[in-house]
Amino acid sequence: MATLLFVSAPAAVAVPEIDPFAVMNVVGLLAFAVAGALKAAEAGLDVFGVSVLGIVTALGGGTTRDVLVDRLPASLAGTWDMSVALVGVALAIVLIHSMEGRVRDHPAFLTTDAVGLSAFAATGALVGVDAGVTSFGVVILATITAVGGGSIADILIGRVPVVLRDDFYATPAVVGGLAFLAARAVGAPTGVPSGLCAAVVFSVRVLALRYDWRLPRV
Amino acid sequence: MATLLFVSAPAAVAVPEIDPFAVMNVVGLLAFAVAGALKAAEAGLDVFGVSVLGIVTALGGGTTRDVLVDRLPASLAGTWDMSVALVGVALAIVLIHSMEGRVRDHPAFLTTDAVGLSAFAATGALVGVDAGVTSFGVVILATITAVGGGSIADILIGRVPVVLRDDFYATPAVVGGLAFLAARAVGAPTGVPSGLCAAVVFSVRVLALRYDWRLPRV
Amino acid sequence: MATLLFVSAPAAVAVPEIDPFAVMNVVGLLAFAVAGALKAAEAGLDVFGVSVLGIVTALGGGTTRDVLVDRLPASLAGTWDMSVALVGVALAIVLIHSMEGRVRDHPAFLTTDAVGLSAFAATGALVGVDAGVTSFGVVILATITAVGGGSIADILIGRVPVVLRDDFYATPAVVGGLAFLAARAVGAPTGVPSGLCAAVVFSVRVLALRYDWRLPRV
Repeated sequence: MATLLFVSAPAAVAVPEIDPFAVMNVVGLLAFAVAGALKAAEAGLDVFGVSVLGIVTALGGGTTRDVLVDRLPASLAGTWDMSVALVGVALAIVLIHSMEGRVRDHPAFLTTDAVGLSAFAATGALVGVDAGVTSFGVVILATITAVGGGSIADILIGRVPVVLRDDFYATPAVVGGLAFLAARAVGAPTGVPSGLCAAVVFSVRVLALRYDWRLPRV
Repeated sequence: MATLLFVSAPAAVAVPEIDPFAVMNVVGLLAFAVAGALKAAEAGLDVFGVSVLGIVTALGGGTTRDVLVDRLPASLAGTWDMSVALVGVALAIVLIHSMEGRVRDHPAFLTTDAVGLSAFAATGALVGVDAGVTSFGVVILATITAVGGGSIADILIGRVPVVLRDDFYATPAVVGGLAFLAARAVGAPTGVPSGLCAAVVFSVRVLALRYDWRLPRV
Repeated sequence: MATLLFVSAPAAVAVPEIDPFAVMNVVGLLAFAVAGALKAAEAGLDVFGVSVLGIVTALGGGTTRDVLVDRLPASLAGTWDMSVALVGVALAIVLIHSMEGRVRDHPAFLTTDAVGLSAFAATGALVGVDAGVTSFGVVILATITAVGGGSIADILIGRVPVVLRDDFYATPAVVGGLAFLAARAVGAPTGVPSGLCAAVVFSVRVLALRYDWRLPRV
């Protein structure tokens, strides 16, 4: 993946090359592993269930993304993703005892989850471009990668996925995907489209939570 | 896909070539997008949820089909599928206000859903042949493509998929898949097997609804 | 698959070559088809639902495994898997009438399910090695292949998957995956790592049931 991105990166770029995918990926994995594990602990699952849900939340979106574009999922091709997810789970097990009230309304949880959402939307968009999908496809992949892991986790514990319960959970990912496309359209250098995508997703998500945005009923 | 089908089509066919996959695909996408969106509106979801469920119902079965046969899903490879799905969602949002009683028992809903079921069973069978799967595989792909999108949508809103609640939801797709194989076995020209498949699925589904067919308990 | 395994098998092995994958695969398919069908019958589903759940439980894990490593699923590439699954469903329909009490607590059910779990964990590990995934990946594939079918079946009937309800359902598969890696690390001949994996999964699962093992809460 990294290689592919380097290849597709403009040779002219002066700044030392950082693989935007690798950065966004590790941030997303860590944030979602923590968020998933916290959600599982709140649901009263044991250590194993907490680990499973943390891992599923962290790896689920990216694995779905890779399956859709016919790549061997990063979670199987390397040990890195799984290791980061396990670190996140461990972190969550420490955190859980220091949190008060309903975890899923806790600012720490919501922020962590928003970070994962933002980073994974960016990885989805990057992989989409890399796989040569259409603009629609890029937005779809950004959204699926962002909300996929959490949705699978919610379904596993028998909950209606937050993507359907909260109007502004997937919407920020869609907007971020569009921002990514816009940045590319104007020829922004490597790293800028994904960075902008993540920033937009995060901002929209946090503002939506802060001001309790809702979409109209039909 | 289209190309592949043309290649595999008998050169002798006199009638102007119409790609059976393209026809069945657009019919299915439109019907299922409408059906999915209506189901979501009934479930009290907002505009976003309605769109998500419409899109998932329309694209879910075909995407699963493509992932199973290792193709880049049509929903990512082109803008066509997504565009048609969005048209279907818009159509549903208009329709919803003109419908009375429980949407999911409404003849308009049941017919639309049956059309989607029929068209997608045909696309599943066509892709199966194209991918060189076995006869069993063709029937399985026809069934999965037909019931996949609706099942994912049902699971998302926390319902037991209709495929398990209604004896004659997947059964028509299985019968249609067998009809498709039979037509091919007797060397029917391009378009006939898929047309027959769709016709059989639709007839069995509608008759089952009309006469409330049930399968025996074990 | 068989071919690939032969290729990767040490030429020095004297005993007549038996494809470990083929053996484990048929055992797992049969066991899980029976287990899935029994579960469905208990849930009050009709013949069709029972067949669907038996087939899904039997083919779900392996199909997920194959999709993850980008192979055309065995269930579509050949008629063998489906045929075995159907035999298992038929067997279950006969069995169901001779069982008393809650099926899912019945020793016959639990043992059959444990056999499926063990055999499929082995096939997952074998395919993982074959696809060149990491050691982590081998353990993940062993686990997903083992618990995948049953989890999909549970979700279809609206249950929290047993993998989350029972501490020692996925854990044995993880331990078995590690045993598989250990056997390979010491250069055990073809068939030994998968045999050991299955034996370990089965033993851990049965002991966990017998002594009602639990993992600590966080």
